Amino acid sequence: MTCGSFSVMAAVKQAPLLALLVVAGEVLSFPLVQETQPATSCGYESCHVTKPNMLNVHLVPHTHDDVGWLKTVDQYYYGDRNDIQHAGVQYILDSVVDQLLKNPDRRFIYVETAFFYRWWRQQSSSMQQTVKQLVNEGRLEFVNGGWCMSDEATTHYSAVIDQMTLGLRFLNDTFGACGRPRVAWHIDPFGHAREHASMFAQMGYDGFFFGRLDYQDRTHRMVQREQELLWRASDSLTPPMADLFTGILPNGYNPPEGFCWDQLCHDAPIRDDPHLEDYNVDDVVKRFLVIANSQAKVYKTNHIIMTMGSDFQYENANLWYKNLDKLIHYVNAQQANGSKVNVLYSTPSCYLQELHRANLTWTLKRDDFFPYADNAHDFWTGYFTSRPALKRYERISNSNLQICKQLEVLAGRASREGPYRGADSDTMKEAMAVAQHHDAVSGTEKQHVANDYARRLADGWQHCQLLISNSLGALTGVFGKQNYCDHLNISVCPPTELFKKFLVGVYNPLARPVTWPLRLPVNGTAYTVSDVRGKAVPCQVVPVSRATQELRRNRGFAVNELVFEVQAPPLGYTTYSVSLVLDGPPLASVRHRTPTVIQNKFLQVTFDPDTGLLSSLSNLETKQSIKLTQNFYWYNASDGRNVESHQASGAYIFRPNSSTPFIISKTAKTGSIQTSVVQEVRQWFAPWVSQVVRLYADSRALELEWTVGPLPIDDHLGKEVITRLDTSIQTSGVFYTDSNGREVLQRRKDFRPTWNLNQTEPIAGNYYPINSRAFIKDDMDQLTVVTDRSQGGGSIHNGSLEIMLHRRLLYDDNRGVGEPLNETSDIFPEGLVVRGRLLLSLERPSAAADRHRPLAEQEVLQPLLTFSEGDLRPGVKFEFSGLQAALPPAVHLLTLSQWDKDSVLLRLEHQFQSRESKVNSQPVTISLQKLFSSLDVLGVSELNLSANQWKEEMKRFDWTPDEEEKTVLKTLQVPSEWEVTLKPMEIRTFLLKVRLV
Amino acid sequence: MTCGSFSVMAAVKQAPLLALLVVAGEVLSFPLVQETQPATSCGYESCHVTKPNMLNVHLVPHTHDDVGWLKTVDQYYYGDRNDIQHAGVQYILDSVVDQLLKNPDRRFIYVETAFFYRWWRQQSSSMQQTVKQLVNEGRLEFVNGGWCMSDEATTHYSAVIDQMTLGLRFLNDTFGACGRPRVAWHIDPFGHAREHASMFAQMGYDGFFFGRLDYQDRTHRMVQREQELLWRASDSLTPPMADLFTGILPNGYNPPEGFCWDQLCHDAPIRDDPHLEDYNVDDVVKRFLVIANSQAKVYKTNHIIMTMGSDFQYENANLWYKNLDKLIHYVNAQQANGSKVNVLYSTPSCYLQELHRANLTWTLKRDDFFPYADNAHDFWTGYFTSRPALKRYERISNSNLQICKQLEVLAGRASREGPYRGADSDTMKEAMAVAQHHDAVSGTEKQHVANDYARRLADGWQHCQLLISNSLGALTGVFGKQNYCDHLNISVCPPTELFKKFLVGVYNPLARPVTWPLRLPVNGTAYTVSDVRGKAVPCQVVPVSRATQELRRNRGFAVNELVFEVQAPPLGYTTYSVSLVLDGPPLASVRHRTPTVIQNKFLQVTFDPDTGLLSSLSNLETKQSIKLTQNFYWYNASDGRNVESHQASGAYIFRPNSSTPFIISKTAKTGSIQTSVVQEVRQWFAPWVSQVVRLYADSRALELEWTVGPLPIDDHLGKEVITRLDTSIQTSGVFYTDSNGREVLQRRKDFRPTWNLNQTEPIAGNYYPINSRAFIKDDMDQLTVVTDRSQGGGSIHNGSLEIMLHRRLLYDDNRGVGEPLNETSDIFPEGLVVRGRLLLSLERPSAAADRHRPLAEQEVLQPLLTFSEGDLRPGVKFEFSGLQAALPPAVHLLTLSQWDKDSVLLRLEHQFQSRESKVNSQPVTISLQKLFSSLDVLGVSELNLSANQWKEEMKRFDWTPDEEEKTVLKTLQVPSEWEVTLKPMEIRTFLLKVRLV
Repeated sequence: MTCGSFSVMAAVKQAPLLALLVVAGEVLSFPLVQETQPATSCGYESCHVTKPNMLNVHLVPHTHDDVGWLKTVDQYYYGDRNDIQHAGVQYILDSVVDQLLKNPDRRFIYVETAFFYRWWRQQSSSMQQTVKQLVNEGRLEFVNGGWCMSDEATTHYSAVIDQMTLGLRFLNDTFGACGRPRVAWHIDPFGHAREHASMFAQMGYDGFFFGRLDYQDRTHRMVQREQELLWRASDSLTPPMADLFTGILPNGYNPPEGFCWDQLCHDAPIRDDPHLEDYNVDDVVKRFLVIANSQAKVYKTNHIIMTMGSDFQYENANLWYKNLDKLIHYVNAQQANGSKVNVLYSTPSCYLQELHRANLTWTLKRDDFFPYADNAHDFWTGYFTSRPALKRYERISNSNLQICKQLEVLAGRASREGPYRGADSDTMKEAMAVAQHHDAVSGTEKQHVANDYARRLADGWQHCQLLISNSLGALTGVFGKQNYCDHLNISVCPPTELFKKFLVGVYNPLARPVTWPLRLPVNGTAYTVSDVRGKAVPCQVVPVSRATQELRRNRGFAVNELVFEVQAPPLGYTTYSVSLVLDGPPLASVRHRTPTVIQNKFLQVTFDPDTGLLSSLSNLETKQSIKLTQNFYWYNASDGRNVESHQASGAYIFRPNSSTPFIISKTAKTGSIQTSVVQEVRQWFAPWVSQVVRLYADSRALELEWTVGPLPIDDHLGKEVITRLDTSIQTSGVFYTDSNGREVLQRRKDFRPTWNLNQTEPIAGNYYPINSRAFIKDDMDQLTVVTDRSQGGGSIHNGSLEIMLHRRLLYDDNRGVGEPLNETSDIFPEGLVVRGRLLLSLERPSAAADRHRPLAEQEVLQPLLTFSEGDLRPGVKFEFSGLQAALPPAVHLLTLSQWDKDSVLLRLEHQFQSRESKVNSQPVTISLQKLFSSLDVLGVSELNLSANQWKEEMKRFDWTPDEEEKTVLKTLQVPSEWEVTLKPMEIRTFLLKVRLV
Repeated sequence: MTCGSFSVMAAVKQAPLLALLVVAGEVLSFPLVQETQPATSCGYESCHVTKPNMLNVHLVPHTHDDVGWLKTVDQYYYGDRNDIQHAGVQYILDSVVDQLLKNPDRRFIYVETAFFYRWWRQQSSSMQQTVKQLVNEGRLEFVNGGWCMSDEATTHYSAVIDQMTLGLRFLNDTFGACGRPRVAWHIDPFGHAREHASMFAQMGYDGFFFGRLDYQDRTHRMVQREQELLWRASDSLTPPMADLFTGILPNGYNPPEGFCWDQLCHDAPIRDDPHLEDYNVDDVVKRFLVIANSQAKVYKTNHIIMTMGSDFQYENANLWYKNLDKLIHYVNAQQANGSKVNVLYSTPSCYLQELHRANLTWTLKRDDFFPYADNAHDFWTGYFTSRPALKRYERISNSNLQICKQLEVLAGRASREGPYRGADSDTMKEAMAVAQHHDAVSGTEKQHVANDYARRLADGWQHCQLLISNSLGALTGVFGKQNYCDHLNISVCPPTELFKKFLVGVYNPLARPVTWPLRLPVNGTAYTVSDVRGKAVPCQVVPVSRATQELRRNRGFAVNELVFEVQAPPLGYTTYSVSLVLDGPPLASVRHRTPTVIQNKFLQVTFDPDTGLLSSLSNLETKQSIKLTQNFYWYNASDGRNVESHQASGAYIFRPNSSTPFIISKTAKTGSIQTSVVQEVRQWFAPWVSQVVRLYADSRALELEWTVGPLPIDDHLGKEVITRLDTSIQTSGVFYTDSNGREVLQRRKDFRPTWNLNQTEPIAGNYYPINSRAFIKDDMDQLTVVTDRSQGGGSIHNGSLEIMLHRRLLYDDNRGVGEPLNETSDIFPEGLVVRGRLLLSLERPSAAADRHRPLAEQEVLQPLLTFSEGDLRPGVKFEFSGLQAALPPAVHLLTLSQWDKDSVLLRLEHQFQSRESKVNSQPVTISLQKLFSSLDVLGVSELNLSANQWKEEMKRFDWTPDEEEKTVLKTLQVPSEWEVTLKPMEIRTFLLKVRLV
């Protein structure tokens, strides 16, 4: 998506609704919910009538169009590379529209806006009018409507909200209210996150349908008729704010057996011409009635749903509809003979409406749907870690995108219209949006598709870099050449390696000041560093580690790293000046014996001198101390040659051959560097596993920077590498993981909250997704691990927490991807090397959130560094802050993004759960008027979370749980028109009318 | 097709053209060529304009829809069993019509009326109107237009003319002149028969296109630019009566490489959105121009054709057309940059029109395109014999259908409306029509499809039996129960086995009296037989042979056969009465020593007493005698494990491992029966090969009744069984075969008339199709073999003629059928047993045709026998003839078929070639008025061969051969309005207005 095309969209807007909130004397008129023509009867009004005294079977024609999987998103769109998989979305949409026009009874739902948008822009205006008419009549209905159908296990809520906003905005801009999906629809993701449900509730969806859940869970729910339930998706938000009606579809998302009439299927068509062979109407009707009646037995109402479609189906929609028309005709014809089954074309929202009308109570669900197993030895817990490099790249790209969007707002038009041409944030928005797809960041795509996602992110980032250069130019007053160093993690950065005098720009995307350690590759041995006010900053030159030198493979040759900490203002920018000197502090040397201890003023870390491993961790402030050993292991991935099951480990599935992992080395070779700026113990376990244990002077977190790979496979054994922290904390089989980077869920070994688990995989069945943090705790101690990407992990032993870092597999796991997860690249033909870090925090449980919330926030939104040759000079604004003041610790500036010419989208988030912090788990109030330093806020209007509906207009179905009275939402008194109060875990979304100061 | 549906068709007819011929004061008004609305611009007028100074590339969107192959015709129609092959014709037609409507430039051709008819009858009247409009505008054009695209090697002209008539009549009735195909289109048949070309010329086609020819031939023609040529398809008919312009398509019938955009293909779509990945317009245009320019080098004009489609393509026509629209747009856009290539949507007729306009001369072709090889060891000569039982069943079914149609005419309405309900000839017409398909009678379909063809024929025959029972009832005056014995060839016939006194009805479909030997299974040892006038008929009871007893497998238990000769009137019926007696002539006994001679008044046959084999054959009338030995052999079928080539023998391909066949037995065990009615020598070669050499008292032909099978495969060797006649005739490598049962072509060993053959398969490369006869001759002797079905054969050695009888193969030959040709059935689980007969005639060459023409005619149209209990009685018309008199020997009554209520279709054929008979190769004149005994002919109008155009209106393109002046057709003076003169090999087709006398 480019700006240009958005302008085109804007041009076709007609008769925008007036905004609902009048503030400070201004009438806000956002073209948010607009109508292209009077909506005739879309949404619930357009549903076909049902028969109350019959079993009503809702046939839902649909296609499931992966936004990349076996082919890239554009290959899928065009139908390229059909040798890999027959799939062409352009043709699906062509065909469905044609077929809808042939019979007004027909219905179709479409889900993935990434595809729909591509198609829409290629249509003639008359075709666009035709489609609008279909949408207005409810014959074509959008469900879910995000840019993609996001993965739930490995995505971060920030990126999910963005991708939903991107997709839903397109639908809203294009179709108005009739284009607003009423139903969330995650039919394929491999397990379901509670935070996703919470977000969907806050986005205004009336209900949610999915297809995959644990097979034991499904059986239990079928027996109990609990396949439809009310999901209370937040411990913090007041019900029904995060309540989401949730339905489990009867056949995944496929049609019932024998009723798949797509060109990709082989089921017999309905042959109703008695003159031809094999007339089969009677047989088809009979089989259908058997299936319908049997399905009705495991659901609560006299309505059932059947998903009539599957992956990339309806490319030739005639096959489906021709046979569905006949099915409906012949099955309903049996009513004249006393049949009590009524079949109809329907949509998920029409089905949902009937469930709502049933006025029943529904089981309450408070946990989530992880892990997902579709058989006893088939746990889909491998993808929590699959493609760790892509997962990291996606995470840092989100940080980059937020910065890009912020600077677009702060600099206004200049950001796009400055001297650097081709500047936009849309490319990156789209790249990030497709990366959220459940076969993207999940790591479950083919290798060439993973490469494509990465390429798109890189391309988006190129566009953003131009935008940022324009913005920083406008904001600082000088448009010098900015260099961006994306390979600092392997000590590659040409400007710092080459220039004797250079400036480091630091942009901080958080709404509070940050301190951040920098490590810049240099070739000198001594440097001076000074801040924007000329004040010297402590710094240290240390040698580049051997692991890093190997890792960068001729992409850089710096021998040393210059280490210093920077401080940057809230939503702001500052500059550091660095100069090579002849007589600086001496180069720190690596000592080749294991130190027994490293420490700073906050933490003390001890090592076992015999093994070189960590042995304890102490918080010097709280005076708490735990035993802590940490080492690396690998599970031998099942190759599927096994009497119990033929399931191999693969991109999706984690299945170790044995519950006991192999230790990589009982001891580590070590070296250490101890300086006043940083202290490091470098551990070397094997040619393919090393680690730096690192403590910066001002840090309350211990950094474990791991480097793993290439995993050796000359033994023909697939490997799944973990690091395991073994502590003295008494966990009793309990540990905690976050959900999409927000609220935390408790996990218990060999246990599921809602059914009696028969545990069949002692390791894989105890793995859960870790998006940004996991912790173990007892009454005294909480050890929190903040991750730099999504990873899988578990707590198999008392006091232990293991995290899977990297996987290399030699077999496909037979879920369609058709390739073993065996990552190589041009740079790493012998196998991918991955580097990352874990941040460890040891606190009292009652105060742990006060550390790990900001720590994770900083890890997710990292400062952006820019480099330019030269020195500070007068007349340039080398420091600025976009905020008038830092926001309170509880408030996270989740979104700041240009919306239209004069408006910006703002999301403020309370980043603490209720009751997790004495200090921060309190409502907090912010004044929007006094928020920004460079923007005048002229008006404000609140929206739902996905920014496609005015908050006031959000009227969701109310559902009654079967175990309690509904809580009535009490609204806090609004302090003033400009002030916004956030309660724990609340996100509030505003459209601001602004003017650059 | 049922009568009912024809009536529906008739009901929509409007404004029929008046017939052109006014005879005997009556104005004939046949609704033959009718218009549903004023034709706007179909046919040649609807072609897109081309550019004279450019290379014009005619893109022809088409689908090739086999009327049965891997699936049955109805499975293909509905898209059932897509697990076998993805193909659903109903959807193809749905989709193509939709897509044609989207862009008036688009064109499509449709070929197989068997499918189109099925589809049409399921459409609403508004859809039918839409399609008529498309046809009237030339956007949808029918080519070929027969019920199927017939096989050319194994079909009989009689059945081919019928199937073409059936298909073309539907098109004519439905669409009028715009539905008349201008072009014949045999893109898939595996070699091309000259007689097919002759028929197409006489059916009024302006040109003919095909895809398959010998690879050496193609190369030669490419170099010579002779891929377009003028085929002079008859030695007898005066040019240009059988001249057919013939074009060889450039890529078989596929698109050029890289340009297949069907859902069944994997070529890259045109990606013309620069915002998406992999924009490829430039690449596509470049590749297309290279292909077009290179193709133009091997054709003569500045027009080339590209077939954009293939097997069962266009099920989702959008894929094709969307990309073709783009291709045309982007390639033609290059004209602005100087490109001289112009691409357009076209049809074969539009392409043909441009070739015609080029006004060039064209190479003359006088032979045919057999055998077909697509590589050095890949001769498609196996299918000449594949599925010999199906081939025989198809042949006898043709005979039954002709009888059915004749009796429908002779009895009029009573035939359909008599007491036997369900009587119709349409079921059989359709069954026979689909059986002509090039994967039907050819034997190249899957087993279950072969079963379906046979089932359809059996079903058709059931309907015809009812019709015949009604007709005979009406014509004889008594509606007694008629029994039909379809298993007389294995001596099974319950009425003759059970009844002590029964009547045998004999219906003779020929226009002259026949004498015919009957062999009826009986359990008595003595019978009397008398004719309809009570005259005793010589008869003989002989024991059923051991081979027959084994063959019938509990389907009958008769121990003896009653043998006598019957005589039946022209186009007529007579009755014989049979009674069991106690004291009849004694049962003939089998003598178990080899006789040295059997003979009747015409022939003498000698045997070698040592071997039991034939040793000589003499014609006692002409006093000629030849040495003749005959034995059975098998070629070992290649299994493809061969260094020269991996080609195995299969349903299509014949590839013996060695050129020397294995002899089955050097000697035969023999027995003989010699009576005054029949003389037999029964030869036993092996458990799976036996033969009866049989000479009836009044026969001029020697019958060799062979029984072959089950071919043993316990040695894991595929077997192709031949019988070989080795004679003293000096053939010098020359022999003769018929073409589709009509004209005879000379064949020379290791030779092709139009190019310098490099013979790579000494046996398979010398095999040719034999449809009804083959002969060898020298100046003195001609030995003609008349077959009872199509078979392959060759003359490998001097004086020798071999015919392949049966094949059993263990490997697939990799041409798609995917099954080895290994026929088994419930009755023959150990392998199919096949029985058939060869009729041998020894004559002087100059008189041979006088024997073999009538002999083959009798073999093709055999008398039908009916059986009923009881005896002759007064008041019943036990004998009748439909003709006033027998027709002359040269005239064959090819077709007599009810057309409409008051009209019948009549085809009269001169069944001799010019110069092959002193007596019969002369024009002959017939009076139509005096033809029938039971019909008054009120008017007559002549049609083209396929009965879809008035003869007078036939105006075909004239083409100039490059080697001679065009002959001007001299018309013989018409003797009178009612008299019809036939010249050698001429077929004349008439619509008669008739009234039952």
